[in-house]
Amino acid sequence: MSSPTPIAFWFDFASPYAYIANEWIDALAARHGRTVQRHAMLLGVIFPHADLKPLVNYPIKGEYARRDILRTARFERLPFAFPEAFPVSTHQAARVFWWLADTQGQEAAAAWVRTATRAYFTRGENISEPGVLRALAAEAGLDGAAAEAAWSEPRWKDRLRQANDAALQAGVFGAPFFVIDGEAFWGNDRKPQMDRWLAEGAF
Amino acid sequence: MSSPTPIAFWFDFASPYAYIANEWIDALAARHGRTVQRHAMLLGVIFPHADLKPLVNYPIKGEYARRDILRTARFERLPFAFPEAFPVSTHQAARVFWWLADTQGQEAAAAWVRTATRAYFTRGENISEPGVLRALAAEAGLDGAAAEAAWSEPRWKDRLRQANDAALQAGVFGAPFFVIDGEAFWGNDRKPQMDRWLAEGAF
Repeated sequence: MSSPTPIAFWFDFASPYAYIANEWIDALAARHGRTVQRHAMLLGVIFPHADLKPLVNYPIKGEYARRDILRTARFERLPFAFPEAFPVSTHQAARVFWWLADTQGQEAAAAWVRTATRAYFTRGENISEPGVLRALAAEAGLDGAAAEAAWSEPRWKDRLRQANDAALQAGVFGAPFFVIDGEAFWGNDRKPQMDRWLAEGAF
Repeated sequence: MSSPTPIAFWFDFASPYAYIANEWIDALAARHGRTVQRHAMLLGVIFPHADLKPLVNYPIKGEYARRDILRTARFERLPFAFPEAFPVSTHQAARVFWWLADTQGQEAAAAWVRTATRAYFTRGENISEPGVLRALAAEAGLDGAAAEAAWSEPRWKDRLRQANDAALQAGVFGAPFFVIDGEAFWGNDRKPQMDRWLAEGAF
């Protein structure tokens, strides 16, 4: 018997709702005998294709979103503090992710996601700054020089470009975005639907 | 002891997610000893203020939304069929709502919401057409001539305009939109947060 396909999880390191989802997705998958395949991408690349912009840039809705993000983190009983610099560019953190995913595997890459998103969303560390990334790489036990090379080498720039293209192919227009056996679920708030889908199959 | 304030529920007759929420909001409120105060408004008036447009008009996200709406209705175990004419203008249905709310009370108005949204979202009846509205008014046991007068008289046009202004004042940018004791909740998927808020108070 083949093992069930992993849950695909598309995210941007600067998405607060993706940070929240990143904290529950592995447990949800494990409850249903699944694993998680993470895909780092850049919402800044995706949004124009979908005629969208960062949530907090919308009038009225943006104000609501700031409040809803804080409340949703409390609802999930997760630590959260809005970073002063928000949103920030995340291509460097994302390239480190793909370097780890492709050379050391999903588990190492997932650990990096946790390290970087927790630093950003609980301690406000600006993950677009090289000095911060270097310190976080050390905190994550990575080879600092290799991590730094990963965020500037053409190979990993290309890898991230491929991931953005794949995201568009997969119909991604925001984060967190999940695909379970071909079915797409967008948003932290689709957890209950994903849970039933995994338990009972398509409904 | 004064009774707790009603849950404010803002909606547009052509919002599928608002149709879904309309089916569970009274039960949710009742479980927590609350009532519901409905407010019909026009998303077509609201959206430009929030730099938004109808969900299905967005590339990529719109495709997802059509699928998500169907799945969300199944998740809530509600009948749902996408109307061929979608979205449609709802100012007439909304004026009938305000006529009923102001002259016969919230219960009569809520019954009208159920009649019109079920006709639109389960039988595809185009609620922007006067003939359809006349038939639905009859189905709802309303005085047909009075209902028809309501959707063309200046008094109810003004009343709907006031409601749209009040929606903007309340920070509404989409539907369904709820306010519980000053706290705003947007979206059918905020039900679990609303449930906890009502049970335990602010979190």
